[in-house]
Formats: sequence, C-alpha cells, structure tokens
Amino acid sequence: MLNHIGNNDTICALATPHGMGAIAVIRISGTQAFPIVATLFQSQGKPLEIIGIHPNKAYHGYLINNDELLDEAVVTFFKAPHSFTGEDTAEISVHGSVYVQQKLLQVLVAHGCRMAEAGEFTRRAFVNRKFDLTQAEAIADLISSESEAAHRVAINQLKGGFSKELQVLRSKLLEMTSLIELELDFSEEDVEFADRSQLKALLQETLDKVNILKDSFRLGNAIKNGIPVAIVGQTNTGKSTLLNTLLGEDRAIVSDIAGTTRDTIEETLNIKGILYRFIDTAGLRKTDETIEKIGIERSYKKIQEATLVIGMLDATKDYGSMLSAANDILEKVDLRHQQLIICINKVDTLSDHGVALLGQLRQDLNNDDVIFICLSAKHHLGIDDLYNALNQYQTLSSPDATLVTNVRHYEALTHASESLKQVQQGLEMNIPTDLVSQDLRQALYHLGSITGEITTDEVLGNIFSRFCIGK
Amino acid sequence: MLNHIGNNDTICALATPHGMGAIAVIRISGTQAFPIVATLFQSQGKPLEIIGIHPNKAYHGYLINNDELLDEAVVTFFKAPHSFTGEDTAEISVHGSVYVQQKLLQVLVAHGCRMAEAGEFTRRAFVNRKFDLTQAEAIADLISSESEAAHRVAINQLKGGFSKELQVLRSKLLEMTSLIELELDFSEEDVEFADRSQLKALLQETLDKVNILKDSFRLGNAIKNGIPVAIVGQTNTGKSTLLNTLLGEDRAIVSDIAGTTRDTIEETLNIKGILYRFIDTAGLRKTDETIEKIGIERSYKKIQEATLVIGMLDATKDYGSMLSAANDILEKVDLRHQQLIICINKVDTLSDHGVALLGQLRQDLNNDDVIFICLSAKHHLGIDDLYNALNQYQTLSSPDATLVTNVRHYEALTHASESLKQVQQGLEMNIPTDLVSQDLRQALYHLGSITGEITTDEVLGNIFSRFCIGK
Repeated sequence: MLNHIGNNDTICALATPHGMGAIAVIRISGTQAFPIVATLFQSQGKPLEIIGIHPNKAYHGYLINNDELLDEAVVTFFKAPHSFTGEDTAEISVHGSVYVQQKLLQVLVAHGCRMAEAGEFTRRAFVNRKFDLTQAEAIADLISSESEAAHRVAINQLKGGFSKELQVLRSKLLEMTSLIELELDFSEEDVEFADRSQLKALLQETLDKVNILKDSFRLGNAIKNGIPVAIVGQTNTGKSTLLNTLLGEDRAIVSDIAGTTRDTIEETLNIKGILYRFIDTAGLRKTDETIEKIGIERSYKKIQEATLVIGMLDATKDYGSMLSAANDILEKVDLRHQQLIICINKVDTLSDHGVALLGQLRQDLNNDDVIFICLSAKHHLGIDDLYNALNQYQTLSSPDATLVTNVRHYEALTHASESLKQVQQGLEMNIPTDLVSQDLRQALYHLGSITGEITTDEVLGNIFSRFCIGK
Repeated sequence: MLNHIGNNDTICALATPHGMGAIAVIRISGTQAFPIVATLFQSQGKPLEIIGIHPNKAYHGYLINNDELLDEAVVTFFKAPHSFTGEDTAEISVHGSVYVQQKLLQVLVAHGCRMAEAGEFTRRAFVNRKFDLTQAEAIADLISSESEAAHRVAINQLKGGFSKELQVLRSKLLEMTSLIELELDFSEEDVEFADRSQLKALLQETLDKVNILKDSFRLGNAIKNGIPVAIVGQTNTGKSTLLNTLLGEDRAIVSDIAGTTRDTIEETLNIKGILYRFIDTAGLRKTDETIEKIGIERSYKKIQEATLVIGMLDATKDYGSMLSAANDILEKVDLRHQQLIICINKVDTLSDHGVALLGQLRQDLNNDDVIFICLSAKHHLGIDDLYNALNQYQTLSSPDATLVTNVRHYEALTHASESLKQVQQGLEMNIPTDLVSQDLRQALYHLGSITGEITTDEVLGNIFSRFCIGK
C-alpha cells in the first residue's frame, strides 16, 4: 500500500469537494510540479516557462494542452519548503466543471503526475516535518468538524496542542534513560549517572500529564462525535415528543448547510455550538414479557453509555408513582461519571403548582448532583432551561483546555501511563536497572508514537488512509 | 429581485462545491473586500493591515475573529479592474470543513459583507464589461459541461465565439440605420445618405450569418444536452438489450466522476467525448388495442424529435418481414434532418450470411443516406461499428465551428432573421423610409440582445438567476 509508494514522484488531486461549483482547485506536489504545470499554462499569451515562475504569485491565464484550450485558470506556485507539503507545489483554480476537473487530472497524469493516494499530501507534509502526527490528525478532524466545540478542539490540536508538552517531557525522559543505560555499561563499577530523585520527579510529572490527557478523552471524544444523551423514563412520559421538539427547534440551525451527513442521523443535534447525540430508549416499566424485557435491558445499557441522562417524569401521575419512577432512574445512573437531568414533563397540565412539585421532588430525592427542570415538551415550555442544563456539562471544562479526541492517542496514553507506573514501582522495589530501562523504553515508545517521533509504515498508512483524497 | 440589489455593496459566497473537501474557497468582491478581509487575517503574526496588501500575492496566515482562531488560510487579493468581477476581490482558501465554511461566511457578513445572489459575481463582471452576455452565459455552460464536445463549444463561446462577428455586423448596420434616419429629417428634400446597394449587401451578409448561426442550434443544443437518439423497431428485436449493452460498456467511463447527475439519468451516455440521450420507444407493431396504440403514437413522436434513429431489425425473422419492417421505419424518418442507422440484430444466430443479408437489404431499400450495420447486442458484436456510425453525425461539423447552444440566442437570432428579411422585402417594395427604419431598429434590437448591448434588468435577472451561488 502506501509504503510502496515513492515520495519522489509528483502527485496531483482535486483539492475541493467533488461536483459542480463556481471554481475547483487541483493541487500538484513534487519535484516536477513546476515544470509540468508551466508546460500547460500560458499567461498573457506567453508560456509560463518563458515568463519565469515567481512563487506565491497568482497568475491568470489559460491551460492549453497540445493546442487545445482546456480552461481559463488562476495558478499559484509555492516553493519548497514554503508549501503545505514542504515540496514544490502548484494550485490550479479552474471553472468548477466536472468535465474540466477530470480532463485536467488526465492531462496532468499524461505529463508525468500520479494521482495522489488518500491523505498523501498531508503525509508528505508530515514526512517533511511541517508538523507532527497529532497535528496531521488534527487536520482530518478540522475538516470533518461539524460543531463549534469540535472545531475549537481541532484548532487547538492543530496549533500544537498537547504534543509539544509531551515532546518536552519525553525528551527529558529520553535523556534520563540514556544515562541509566550508560550505567549498565559500567555495571561492575556501581555508578549512578541518573539522579534517582530527579528521575522520580520527572516520572511523576509525566505521569500526571499523561493521566490528565487520558482522562480528557471522555469529554474530547464526546465533543468530537457528539455528547451522548440518553432520554429515559416510563412509557408515555413524552420522551419522543421531547426528541421531536428538540429536532424541530434546531433543524433550522443545520438546514442551511448542504451536503452534511448530519441530515441522515436525525438524532444528532447541534445546540449552541455543541454536538449532542440523542439516544432514544424504550420506556422503562416492570414486565414479564420476554421481548419487552430485552428492550428494557438495552435501555439500561444505553443509559450506561451516555454522558448525560434526561430522566422524564409525567406530571399528570400521582406524586407517589412519580417519586418511585425518579428513584428507579436514579438507581441506574452513575453520578460519578454521568449528569442526570430530571424533567417533570407535561407541566402545562398543572395549574400553577409545578414549581412546588419540583421543590418537593428535589427535597425527597435529596441529591445535589441532580438537575431538576419543569417542562412541557409538547408546548415548548422550559426547553431553554434544558439547553442550559445540557450545555452546563460541557462548559465545566475551560474552552482552551487540551482535550484528547483521538482513540489512537487515548490508547497510546493508556499504555504510556501503565509503563510509567511500572517504572515507578520498579524504582520503589529497587529492581535491577536493566529492567527499569526496559520499562522506560516502553513508555518512551508509547509517548513517541503519539507525536509520530516513533512510527511504522503500517501505522502511518492506517492514519492517512482515513483522509480524503486531495488532502 | 436582482434589480433591487445595489452594486456598491461587498458580496461574499462559497466558490467551491458544497460539502467536505481538502480545501474550500470563499470569494469576496466589492469596495470593502480588502479592508474586511485584512481585519480578519494575520500573516507572519502581524495583521495584514500593517504589512500592507500586495495584489496577486498568496498570503499564508491565520483567520482570527475577536481573538478566536477560525482557521489557517491562504488569501489572495485581486485589485480592480484586474479581477474576475472587475472589482476589488479577495479569495480565501481554508480547510474544507463545512463548519469553517459556514462560520467564515457568518463572520464576513457580521463585518459588512452581503451573501451573494446566484450568478452575482458574473453579473458584476458583465456590468463592469469584463465580457459580453454570451460569454457570461458560456461560463454557466462551461461549468455544467459534461462531455468533451459540450466543453469545446462552451470554451469557443467563452473566447468570444460568434458574438464578436455579430457585434461588427450590428455596428455597421447601426451606422446605416442612423444615416437612413437622418434622411427622415430631410424628407422633403428627397436626399439619400445611405447607399441602398451597400445596405442591401450588408443586410444579406448579416442575414446569412444570422441564418448559419440559427441553423447551428439544432446541433449545438444536441451537443449541450445530448444528441437525441431514438431506438425503434418491432417488439423483440433487441432494443432494450442494445440499450443495456451500451450502458454496460460505457458505465465505466462515467463511474469515476463522483457526484454528477448523470447517474440518475441512465439513458444519457458519453461515447468518445460526445453526449447522447438515448430514447427508448415502445415496439412498433400494428394493433387495435387502444392503450398500445397510444404507446406506438408516442414512439412515432419521439422518432421525430430524435436527431439519430437506430432502426432495429431481427435477423432471425424471414427476409420479407424484415424488409417490410425496414420500410416501415424508413417511412417514419425524415432523412433531410435525421440520420437513420439500420441495425440487423441477432446476427450471431446466422452462420455466415450476415453480410449477404445486409447487402441484399441495402440493395432493396436503395437509399444512400441510410447506414447499415450488423449487430449482436447480446454478444457485443458490431458495437464499435455502431459507435462510429453515431459519431459520424457529430463529426460532420468542424470541431471549431461556431455553434449556438442557447435557447435565448436561438430565439433572438430567429427574430433578427425575420426582421432582416422584412427590411429586405421593404426595400424591394420601395416602402417608405420610416417603415424600413423601424424594421432595422427591430433587427438591431434582437442582435443587440444576444451580446447584451441591449438588455433589461428582467432579462439579466433571468439569465443570472440560473447560475449557482458563488459564481
């Protein structure tokens, strides 16, 4: 696959989305990018080869292949290393016809370019040290970001995010490890080049940082893919009505974005810049019916996967059964990791004692971690209160907090954390230096794999194949 | 609509196709384009306002709105009149995230831009005399061109095409008309400023040109929208099999273009760079059944609309009924305007007398305008012969011939032709000069409406509203 592809050839691809538009941009990168494009392009009636190429200048002119006029175009050249890939790069902006796009790519290939693989431009940028691996991955996240929060996290990561901090800690640790390994060469002399207390302090600092990052994954992942919200409650408490109300009110927000996948996942909602993934559950009630039991079991499982749980109660029921339903829900929620929002629905049916009912319930449930809201999903009452309750979860973290959103990073951090702990234990137990050194190497490996200081072709192929072609 | 929109405000729109891609380009045009974009953009850590703006230079930097980093970007400025619209223009190339695209447009609007109407960039270019109306229309054709032939016609028109010739003839005619109208002021003195023989020669030259252009519409329109091909023949002669074979063999050609509408119109085929629109017809046979009769009537009507007619015969039938079927088809085709291709299908069933059969049929039908082919649609025999026969029609016209593809132009040319003929008749019949002058003005009006020398807001609104937004 990618590891068989040379980095010396010149690649080309459509950089803008497929389909018809006012303009389309085709990107060419590699040693032959300048001469190939210059052959095809005439500005002010003269071949570009004669005028000479000035980088970073937008040339207006015509693409001509074997005396056939392909299109009017604007061409910009970027000279290595001052380009996205770090190689000589040309960007050709043509009229956005599907025919012209395809024809131009064919002509470029006929002149010696190769069609780029998925993510190959970004891979070359990584190979040419334009950025580290987490930044390359941030570009993919940035492109697919659908909400303000996801965009913010990706932009933070693109700016360097946590990888710079990790790199600094890792290089310190690498130095220590080298000293320890030097001791092994003098093992008979019983010397100690690496100060053990310094090493312990560094280990703790690194471990703390790694653990903070590791723990940020739950929120980071939620922001990227949508914070999972389970709507639970007994049958007929208005769960579906609430979902419809939420969808209806917010559909306007997403409808002006054409071509997003969001349209097909009806339950994903962007509320005030944050993406939520609403999970509808079967009504909870005691039953002996086997199939319904399975449905309710699944609801319980979905509750466990959710970060936020909306517990729906029916205000038209008597207080006793409402309290018992609330306790049922509370029982299923893990308040250490989950936020529970209890909604007393159908409050429009109450004359004016909704607030009193809510006060009573709050008192009887006696749990400060739970949020209580009065709601009429049907009549759109209290929806703003619900929005605020939902957003409260996300705003618990600072907007600039570094969040890990990538499963690969999360796994590497988890492994690094384990290795670091093992080194600590080893030092406590005074195990032989060569074993400590092995664990240190393991930790260094996992930390290095995050930023791409240590990679294999397989890992890179895996990462970049998930990019789109043209990136 | 468009006529209420001022041309002094600064407009912005996404110029690349909707959806996710490696990059997206947003275009801003108008007097405030430079200051608005400069406010939002920092290059090398400094606001662009401080660095100063050099046109046609690609700046790499960051889009920052109220201290919030929106995205990394490349920005190029084009100074009026050296831009597409003829106004100050900025093009911002960002990461192709749907969120970033939308957010940036919101920020631009907040800073004083207005979202562009459909075709408004091109309309401004037309108003600023960057090109005439036929060229503006050619851009829309170029963008939507799906075949090599349609692309070639659009590119020819974009280069000036027939409009320059028409403009020259029209200005000569305008001069003559002015002279004739001057005669009216001296009507009592019986002078003749306009040489009548010169006028007659000019009228004939213009009329000839107009008629050639008018007559090119049939082919021009066919190239743009696909040359209509009717497949006719009795039931069970293999019409549908042929269509499937054609679709199957050529689907590979279109399949690598993602997102084209072609996928949904199964009967449109790009064969060797030319678009064909295949029209399936009900089998022709004598019937008394009312509903089937209607179907067959429709088939006859479709035959009349087609430019090419493929008449299918069944080689397994006896020769007499085959000849009679061929004559039936021949009867329905107008060979002055249509090309008939008679295909003897199922030749795989014949041992080796296919060629003899074809010779016999050619002799009996005795018509040099008809093309004969032996075919096995099922076994893919003779398909290349059919392709060559199809393409022969299009290659009758020179590749650089000026073709009219636009209904609006066709109508204006038809009207101009009628007015010119009326002037000619008037001169022959020595009708009063003031009436001749009226007909001349009429002809001038229609000729001027093609290139846009004479337009109304309504006509312009109509033309540009068909463009996409961002163009």
